[in-house]
Amino acid sequence: MSNIKNIAVFTSGGDAPGMNAAIRAVVRTGLYYNLNVFGIGRGYDGMVHDDIFAMDAKSVANIIQRGGTILKTARSEEFRTVEGRRRAFENLQKKGIDGLVAIGGDGTFTGASKFIEEYNIPIIGLPGTIDNDLAGTDFTIGYDTAINTVIEAVDKIRDTAESHDRVFVVEVMGRDSGLIALRSGISVGAECVLIPEIKVDYEAMMDRLDRTRKNKASRVIIVAEGDDAGAFAVAERIKERFPHYDLRVSILGHIQRGGSPSCMDRVLASRLGVAAVEALMEGRRGEMAGLIHSKVEFTPFEKAIKHIGAVNDNLLRMVDILSS
Amino acid sequence: MSNIKNIAVFTSGGDAPGMNAAIRAVVRTGLYYNLNVFGIGRGYDGMVHDDIFAMDAKSVANIIQRGGTILKTARSEEFRTVEGRRRAFENLQKKGIDGLVAIGGDGTFTGASKFIEEYNIPIIGLPGTIDNDLAGTDFTIGYDTAINTVIEAVDKIRDTAESHDRVFVVEVMGRDSGLIALRSGISVGAECVLIPEIKVDYEAMMDRLDRTRKNKASRVIIVAEGDDAGAFAVAERIKERFPHYDLRVSILGHIQRGGSPSCMDRVLASRLGVAAVEALMEGRRGEMAGLIHSKVEFTPFEKAIKHIGAVNDNLLRMVDILSS
Amino acid sequence: MSNIKNIAVFTSGGDAPGMNAAIRAVVRTGLYYNLNVFGIGRGYDGMVHDDIFAMDAKSVANIIQRGGTILKTARSEEFRTVEGRRRAFENLQKKGIDGLVAIGGDGTFTGASKFIEEYNIPIIGLPGTIDNDLAGTDFTIGYDTAINTVIEAVDKIRDTAESHDRVFVVEVMGRDSGLIALRSGISVGAECVLIPEIKVDYEAMMDRLDRTRKNKASRVIIVAEGDDAGAFAVAERIKERFPHYDLRVSILGHIQRGGSPSCMDRVLASRLGVAAVEALMEGRRGEMAGLIHSKVEFTPFEKAIKHIGAVNDNLLRMVDILSS
Amino acid sequence: MSNIKNIAVFTSGGDAPGMNAAIRAVVRTGLYYNLNVFGIGRGYDGMVHDDIFAMDAKSVANIIQRGGTILKTARSEEFRTVEGRRRAFENLQKKGIDGLVAIGGDGTFTGASKFIEEYNIPIIGLPGTIDNDLAGTDFTIGYDTAINTVIEAVDKIRDTAESHDRVFVVEVMGRDSGLIALRSGISVGAECVLIPEIKVDYEAMMDRLDRTRKNKASRVIIVAEGDDAGAFAVAERIKERFPHYDLRVSILGHIQRGGSPSCMDRVLASRLGVAAVEALMEGRRGEMAGLIHSKVEFTPFEKAIKHIGAVNDNLLRMVDILSS
Repeated sequence: MSNIKNIAVFTSGGDAPGMNAAIRAVVRTGLYYNLNVFGIGRGYDGMVHDDIFAMDAKSVANIIQRGGTILKTARSEEFRTVEGRRRAFENLQKKGIDGLVAIGGDGTFTGASKFIEEYNIPIIGLPGTIDNDLAGTDFTIGYDTAINTVIEAVDKIRDTAESHDRVFVVEVMGRDSGLIALRSGISVGAECVLIPEIKVDYEAMMDRLDRTRKNKASRVIIVAEGDDAGAFAVAERIKERFPHYDLRVSILGHIQRGGSPSCMDRVLASRLGVAAVEALMEGRRGEMAGLIHSKVEFTPFEKAIKHIGAVNDNLLRMVDILSS
Repeated sequence: MSNIKNIAVFTSGGDAPGMNAAIRAVVRTGLYYNLNVFGIGRGYDGMVHDDIFAMDAKSVANIIQRGGTILKTARSEEFRTVEGRRRAFENLQKKGIDGLVAIGGDGTFTGASKFIEEYNIPIIGLPGTIDNDLAGTDFTIGYDTAINTVIEAVDKIRDTAESHDRVFVVEVMGRDSGLIALRSGISVGAECVLIPEIKVDYEAMMDRLDRTRKNKASRVIIVAEGDDAGAFAVAERIKERFPHYDLRVSILGHIQRGGSPSCMDRVLASRLGVAAVEALMEGRRGEMAGLIHSKVEFTPFEKAIKHIGAVNDNLLRMVDILSS
Repeated sequence: MSNIKNIAVFTSGGDAPGMNAAIRAVVRTGLYYNLNVFGIGRGYDGMVHDDIFAMDAKSVANIIQRGGTILKTARSEEFRTVEGRRRAFENLQKKGIDGLVAIGGDGTFTGASKFIEEYNIPIIGLPGTIDNDLAGTDFTIGYDTAINTVIEAVDKIRDTAESHDRVFVVEVMGRDSGLIALRSGISVGAECVLIPEIKVDYEAMMDRLDRTRKNKASRVIIVAEGDDAGAFAVAERIKERFPHYDLRVSILGHIQRGGSPSCMDRVLASRLGVAAVEALMEGRRGEMAGLIHSKVEFTPFEKAIKHIGAVNDNLLRMVDILSS
Repeated sequence: MSNIKNIAVFTSGGDAPGMNAAIRAVVRTGLYYNLNVFGIGRGYDGMVHDDIFAMDAKSVANIIQRGGTILKTARSEEFRTVEGRRRAFENLQKKGIDGLVAIGGDGTFTGASKFIEEYNIPIIGLPGTIDNDLAGTDFTIGYDTAINTVIEAVDKIRDTAESHDRVFVVEVMGRDSGLIALRSGISVGAECVLIPEIKVDYEAMMDRLDRTRKNKASRVIIVAEGDDAGAFAVAERIKERFPHYDLRVSILGHIQRGGSPSCMDRVLASRLGVAAVEALMEGRRGEMAGLIHSKVEFTPFEKAIKHIGAVNDNLLRMVDILSS
């Protein structure tokens, strides 16, 4: 058992729906165990610049349903320097903070590891990123909401595609990972899904586009932004081969990050938020709390850090079968 | 009173939410008055190629809530030729069709005018376009849904903007008209709205961006696609002036067309669909049914055709007042 | 021109989506004209109990998209007494408040009239109620959102009704007015709509239910809560006549009040909020700002007070035609 | 390896979002493997009454995003009789159907077991029910959508609760299981969650309501419909104890069944639909395909049948911690 008395929570990296639910869970759990709880604004940058403030139960009232993060998030060049981290630690010391909960992704945990190494301060991480690209958890906070946002958008595009017998190439988020593309592609009945993990077989794609013509007025191709080509390049190739296609490109972009979190993200964020505080109290540090097979599990930061899992072959095969 | 016995309905131009509600109203009203009702697939193109089929009450069951158009829509080069229109008319004659309801925009009514001129067939038009750029109706079918889609998307973007203290330039539809930009801009609390009708005063925009910084973490600029610059060009200028801004661009694109129609669009489409059939029965032709001050009014096609109304100055002024 | 320097805004009566947009518009417009702006918590009750506080541009940042009212609303028995109103006036005087904007309905304006009569304080009203039952405006703030909430809910119910060939009786809000029932009924393709303004012809309803059976698997009857029977009583009668129907009742209830306001409600609230402050500055008082034929118009409180308009016969007739 | 050539798919029991995605996956997978695929209307009733029809790829185009079930569902008293099942089997034989996919719940699988016992026909089941009350799968098809529908509705109610400082008792579906109540309760930040699995400690509830008053303007209590009391009875007790509370009841009812399926339900339904057909081809029968720890697993019908799992204590404990 640790003697932690004062904890602080912050969000870092790109915002993700469910971050507020996680913040709320950390704050309320801390208070439940009679800890003092602080919030840090704008991630590591706020730590360096002393943007640290007490939080109570009311500070997190009525935020569980809000997208974004009330604590804000920002890049911090200064925290990457020895001097920056020294100032950050001094600011925490002034408030007597002896435990941290860091909500973010890959980069967030890299920073946290460095900080622990230098100052031996307990930090527990929570996976807050829409990309679902972290080892140590089946799902990251924000991923489920993001794919639901994608399918709502593509359902709308399908209305137009059907009305005009059109082919749409839709680019979704996922710089290093095709997970958003793959799951949303299956969900919208996409005819093809292109992801960075798999080299695109353009001939197969063209064949499928041609073959599915007889059954389907419209066709939708989902491209992960990290795919080597990108949606416009893919559209260019299709245009070359099938110049008569009525072809359009849509880049979904930033709408994928925001919005009210789904039930799954709210429950996930709440469970992991409770677990993070209890882990700090049990003396854990340098680990990310994740959900594996519906159970909370802890993974050391060095293993949680960016992990491009093997793509589930079954899901890819399903795109073939179901769009036939 | 006319002796119309067989009517047909078709959609033409870009699809718009509420077109299905309009089709349903035309079909059900025709049946109610014991007319035979036909549908024509893919607009004028289906007329030329004899894609004409009988419809009954069941054909339009459970479609009022669907986006797009079950009758599909397409461009028709052939209908622009004398020969194409001749074939179209012959196809209608084969089925004994003696009245048409054309759902679409500017181009749809131009085609209809030509067709009436040559073949003297009664046609009533319904304003189906998200752009709200037709004279003769306060609102076009699809406009209300489109602006609601825009504000839902920008609300999501605002979550991210707030979390990162970012400036977003968001491009919305409206090639010739800033109406979507203006109403959605007011609705999302945009700091600036740029529309094609008004020459952009970049200095004023930069001033406002600078001035609103102290009160607002995030700023959102809405740009109509028809604006001379476009979102990327606007972003470029801002970047030059305020290189330190965390600035992003989002092009909403095709998601603005689809989706389940709003209550307003469903009621509007239903009212005008009923009115169109009754107008044909009363011997009207060559007119568009619209809603002006909550009453159905008819406007000759030549006057309904594309009309860029004066921008409501009060709305523009409101952007200034409310984003201060 | 008046010499108003300090204004206050409050919400009263049932909450309605768009109230926050109206509050924001009042506050920002006041600041734009260099007035001091105060908020009053919990309507007249907060006035009596001195729950009055300064507001600035930041107080209303990022609320335009939120349902409910950040100023809260409550009943106030005390304000109905001479003594209560005296205390309320004294509290306003202490802050030097010389103009009020009251957002609410019928009861709100009755209270305001009494207050003006006794203390001669300028008050402008804004129509904030989902019921759309006020004279002096084509639409009240919240009405458009409420009917959209209704149709989203009934679209879901229709999925189940279609799957089971079921008849649903759905009760929607509207104690004295069938406007929500009528517009939402048309929008969901309801087979019957029962409203308090029109005596129900049960025989006609039974006939229609029976007649529409052949074309339609499912039937939906929309009942306004103010209808003499209520949904359960209507269902009872149907059950007697058609005991073999698979019949269900759904009371939509409180979900109809909340939610993010629609574009129309946000624009309406923003326009009227600007107009209210400018009206106070021009020396107006005792009037409600409304939108009639897309123009802001002012109506004396005594005329704005609860008005059950004649039902639009065309809309009722449409239910008959379109559900055939 | 089996020699199955002709399969049929049907839905039975209450409709659930994602059933259409499952139907689509079964049909498309069957066609992919060159099987003939039939649909059966209205579940077992359609089997008895020969409502059986061929399906092709087009029959299931553009349905993945639709709620309800295009095959409809119904109770069948006749199928419970020996004679009824005999006729059902004869109807299948006439079409040469030698494999079935049954989408539904507990009752569906009981019928299927009986049918296999008597006629030795291969049947694979898919868990299609919003209640998530089946052993053999972590999630049933429809559950994720239903809880998201619940939280969207309660988020709206929270807007009103906050505006009026009100206490709401909200009843959600779940006759035998509190799973919907528990997960949605955590997601909306409910102050109390009452479920049939756990005897309600009213004193604790009253204490919490009283205690949370200082931090929270509004309180929301989620009650599963299967709870011994029901929402009105719970409200009655609260009213007795705290007569001054502004207290309201909302029964969410049938809106919880419909709506466009979530991404999770679409992917789940698609995966299990593919697996069901492949299982039939591999010679499996009398089993339900489910997803356990992200892998497809098969469970004999007699074990899949209604299972009220132990409630996850951690989730219940979280309600206590997070609403403090």
